[in-house]
Amino acid sequence: MIREITISTRKQTELIDISPRIGRLIAEAGFAEGVCLVYSPHTTAALMINERADPAVARDIGDFLEEAIPERRDWAHVEGNSPAHVKAALIGESVWIPIADGRPLLGIWQGVFFCEFDGPRTRRVVVRIVP
Amino acid sequence: MIREITISTRKQTELIDISPRIGRLIAEAGFAEGVCLVYSPHTTAALMINERADPAVARDIGDFLEEAIPERRDWAHVEGNSPAHVKAALIGESVWIPIADGRPLLGIWQGVFFCEFDGPRTRRVVVRIVP
Amino acid sequence: MIREITISTRKQTELIDISPRIGRLIAEAGFAEGVCLVYSPHTTAALMINERADPAVARDIGDFLEEAIPERRDWAHVEGNSPAHVKAALIGESVWIPIADGRPLLGIWQGVFFCEFDGPRTRRVVVRIVP
Repeated sequence: MIREITISTRKQTELIDISPRIGRLIAEAGFAEGVCLVYSPHTTAALMINERADPAVARDIGDFLEEAIPERRDWAHVEGNSPAHVKAALIGESVWIPIADGRPLLGIWQGVFFCEFDGPRTRRVVVRIVP
Repeated sequence: MIREITISTRKQTELIDISPRIGRLIAEAGFAEGVCLVYSPHTTAALMINERADPAVARDIGDFLEEAIPERRDWAHVEGNSPAHVKAALIGESVWIPIADGRPLLGIWQGVFFCEFDGPRTRRVVVRIVP
Repeated sequence: MIREITISTRKQTELIDISPRIGRLIAEAGFAEGVCLVYSPHTTAALMINERADPAVARDIGDFLEEAIPERRDWAHVEGNSPAHVKAALIGESVWIPIADGRPLLGIWQGVFFCEFDGPRTRRVVVRIVP
């Protein structure tokens, strides 16, 4: 089963909790057991699993990446968004979630985040469930 | 097939080779071919595949992360463990191992490491085998 | 289905676009729908999905990693290639590609890169397709 969701980002760097949307797709798929791939077809955005209980955690991760990979460095890529490509490479373009009893087997604090590094833009996320 | 293992960590940052335990679970599962997901349900720990022949490699990786993501920075998350969340985001919460002839198809130097970044704690790892 | 490809790298750090070779293996496998694991059995190399349209992007990512993880630091691992192990740990040893209509469902700018961090060497990449 393959599905797609659309995300409108509003800032240059923005880590958005998409766990409820992923959870609904997994529930609709109706497989009791399996694994779920959440995949970004973009090269300046990423997928991450980390804490959703306190939104400050995602902000700290985004802020750290902005400091560690600065805008003003000399880059070869003339579009000027190489820092966003580096951040996407470090975080990774996909995550996998185990499914048990028809639900995502995320840890109690875990959420799935779409990580925008070159926004604002309209983005797509591909979700594939393997039973 | 889904299994869980428990790990007791003893330091704040500790990269623990869990390859023998994962290898036993794969052998017990009895599938000749497939892939194996090793997943951390925690947000301040990660899974990594890297060299197990010389334990100094895992120490170097842990030391590098401690230097690159310092404790004393101002973080928004009040619990104070944001560096551990950043390290987990960079390394990633899961790894996949191909299975061939009923055994993990790891490279000759490769091992699977549970990466504790906010220990000591008792941790769980979820193992799902897809035939 | 499991396949292997061989890659000869020519520099110490080199990010090589292997998308055409992966695309051919997926076409040969003949599965309309599925997911494809691309796995490096090495500990000083990695797999990454990022922009292939402008080769300068991969160069920028490689250059950033060389600067961020310097050669001259004191490392415990006596072989002296710990920076390559750190880079491999950060980028990750595998990527997954969704398959739809018998083709890799990569984004329009995306390519699959083999990331050499301790070359030149002859390297292997394992490709497993799960229908």
